[in-house]
Amino acid sequence: MSPPLRLGIAGLGTVGVGVLKIVQAQSEVLAARAGRPIIVRAVSARTKSRDRGVDLSGFEWENDPVALAKRKDIDLFVELIGGEDGPAKAAVQAALAAGKNVVTANKAMLAIHGQELAQAAEKKGLSLRFEAAVAGGIPVIKALSEGLAGNAITRIMGVMNGTCNYILTRMETEGIDYETVFADAQALGYLESDPNLDVGGIDAAHKLALLSAIAFGTKVKFQGVELEGIQRITVTDIEQARDMGYRIKLLGVAQMTGRGLEQRMQPALVPADSPLGQLEGATNMVVVEGDSVGQIVLRGAGAGEGPTASAVVGDVIDIARGFNLPVFGQPADTLLDVQAAKASAPAAFYLRLALKDAPGAMAKITRALADAAVSIDRMRQYGHAGAAAAPVLIVTHKTTRSTLDYALDVIGDSGVSVEPPVAIRIEDV
Amino acid sequence: MSPPLRLGIAGLGTVGVGVLKIVQAQSEVLAARAGRPIIVRAVSARTKSRDRGVDLSGFEWENDPVALAKRKDIDLFVELIGGEDGPAKAAVQAALAAGKNVVTANKAMLAIHGQELAQAAEKKGLSLRFEAAVAGGIPVIKALSEGLAGNAITRIMGVMNGTCNYILTRMETEGIDYETVFADAQALGYLESDPNLDVGGIDAAHKLALLSAIAFGTKVKFQGVELEGIQRITVTDIEQARDMGYRIKLLGVAQMTGRGLEQRMQPALVPADSPLGQLEGATNMVVVEGDSVGQIVLRGAGAGEGPTASAVVGDVIDIARGFNLPVFGQPADTLLDVQAAKASAPAAFYLRLALKDAPGAMAKITRALADAAVSIDRMRQYGHAGAAAAPVLIVTHKTTRSTLDYALDVIGDSGVSVEPPVAIRIEDV
Repeated sequence: MSPPLRLGIAGLGTVGVGVLKIVQAQSEVLAARAGRPIIVRAVSARTKSRDRGVDLSGFEWENDPVALAKRKDIDLFVELIGGEDGPAKAAVQAALAAGKNVVTANKAMLAIHGQELAQAAEKKGLSLRFEAAVAGGIPVIKALSEGLAGNAITRIMGVMNGTCNYILTRMETEGIDYETVFADAQALGYLESDPNLDVGGIDAAHKLALLSAIAFGTKVKFQGVELEGIQRITVTDIEQARDMGYRIKLLGVAQMTGRGLEQRMQPALVPADSPLGQLEGATNMVVVEGDSVGQIVLRGAGAGEGPTASAVVGDVIDIARGFNLPVFGQPADTLLDVQAAKASAPAAFYLRLALKDAPGAMAKITRALADAAVSIDRMRQYGHAGAAAAPVLIVTHKTTRSTLDYALDVIGDSGVSVEPPVAIRIEDV
Repeated sequence: MSPPLRLGIAGLGTVGVGVLKIVQAQSEVLAARAGRPIIVRAVSARTKSRDRGVDLSGFEWENDPVALAKRKDIDLFVELIGGEDGPAKAAVQAALAAGKNVVTANKAMLAIHGQELAQAAEKKGLSLRFEAAVAGGIPVIKALSEGLAGNAITRIMGVMNGTCNYILTRMETEGIDYETVFADAQALGYLESDPNLDVGGIDAAHKLALLSAIAFGTKVKFQGVELEGIQRITVTDIEQARDMGYRIKLLGVAQMTGRGLEQRMQPALVPADSPLGQLEGATNMVVVEGDSVGQIVLRGAGAGEGPTASAVVGDVIDIARGFNLPVFGQPADTLLDVQAAKASAPAAFYLRLALKDAPGAMAKITRALADAAVSIDRMRQYGHAGAAAAPVLIVTHKTTRSTLDYALDVIGDSGVSVEPPVAIRIEDV
């Protein structure tokens, strides 16, 4: 059997501890599968003394992750610190400079600095792998960059933030409002320290940008993602969607068009009987469509100690086996630098406006839509019952987002909606 | 860029033609992803003259697949002939003996001769890959042997014969009987030339046996699969299942127990709102459960030109990239030779008997169940209306299959059921 693969692990939060547990508990199986023992040589974290429920006495300790990354007695640096810059990036750069392969779960770092880091790795013939960065335990990076590599990928869709799906599912099943469920999720520790990463869709958009790069052979374009969070979704929206046979998901969609790369991470209505519509709770789902393979659906836990550690260890085993492929599936210097394009395909939209109680208010809305050639499929207006504003719910026939935005601007300027309209795309999935 | 990888393809049916199309249409993308051009150098099939809709003039022709496998100017032999023995096996053996890597879609050959062929490949450090053999375009072999390699796999389930699922779905949606849908499927060319491979569950059992070997680190044990086809399923069974919130699928289940490896490929009732229960038509689904990752669900087309060719080309690209791993994920000579065990976990069962119109017939049935300590959850008896036999439908409380079989034997011996009882397990999924 070959000599052991020696890991240095930086970051001993949930995922780091999960990796330690797997490497210890499954050592024989991992060695059989990898063709060589996999051992942890050294670790690093912010505080040494904290009780993490695992015995660290067998590992060398480094206070500085950069020092860990450069150690002569490690072959593979596992970065589980997180954060797009700072020590995570410094340590990954140091590891690559020192000729070490790298496994990371850091979606933010790769979504922002992926191109630069990929070039640094590939220049030295090193692996930089990140299965754990996208959709937790689901081996979607591997499916896209290896298993489905014979396909021209035509579209990717995904529900990739379990916290958002948890919030939306609870709003639906219990009929309680966003603010209450949000507070619960925060109390349960489900939210990032900056909750906007979750509910603002940023975390999921990081993941989408990484999948897009692999799928379409393009440079990672996080800034090109049309981004909208779930903060303005109400129980009313969810109920209206359900009445029409839909559910609301924070849905990522990426596709290449003649005008450039479309990427959006926004709330969307998806058919309740589709695989995406059937998704409950914190589970993630990624849908990949290829010209030969058709539609492949992958579903599993998107976060948590075990699933994320499973993904990290999968990458470690690949490296132990000697597998090496370009970071985004083809050499970083061949990735195309494409323009970001706004979603152009026509779709039906669900609209919610808060109609002022004033004569002619409704007429202004219908006129603005008609002037933009947005036709109405169905509409429901509730009584004001003394309130200053009452909800108006509209489903349009298919139109483009830019046409719709034009009409919504006119409505906004007219002052008849007391808050900005909510518009949610109805997605064909 | 490295020198091209030169393929020899034996078998130009649907899948072989699909592979040729992908290699030709996607040559640039494949070269970028594989790091080297992928070209077809030579092909072989039974008849040269048949019009297959692709131009073969650029390839060398061999009448004999064994001669193709040995050609000095090919690096990789792609076996798409099919059949567990005969020319397919001879050609694969010749290719391995001549030092060529092999990609195959041949589940029957591997389910029977997998151990022997894996040892032959590994002795020479060669790859023998078979993603296309299981669940068509779904990259499940890769997910199990690579992406989820950090897990102790606890259970595998799958609906992996699209033809059976097509037949059961049509029986359900149109209410027409098995024989009629079977005849339609045959006319449409959906069935193998020996239909028992499909409807008898053999094809799906081949696939399950391959997944089990990877998941549990065991020698392929096709003979250990408890096998039952869908031939005796009636529209009544499907309707009764639906009334209880279930659907009937030809379901594969494999798990390792203290008594040995349980593998079964049998009709089962699965909850209608589970991912497996929601599966329609010819689509395949594989569910993998691991100790760290939890439950991963993979869904996609299980057959057809594009999906199967996608899987073949994925394997080809891995080999072009220089990836090499043991055929079943760990060295063939370390695979355990475990005993086959019958399913032992208690389950509820759906029973259908054809009750003879005779005094005391029903009492004999309930007595036989009671004597075996099988308790009845619900029962429905239809009137004879002059017929010699009338259906009796029973759902049991949880019991073991062996206990149930004892009771069914007693019922069989008593002569009160005019045909052998049908028993379908209700599966917790």
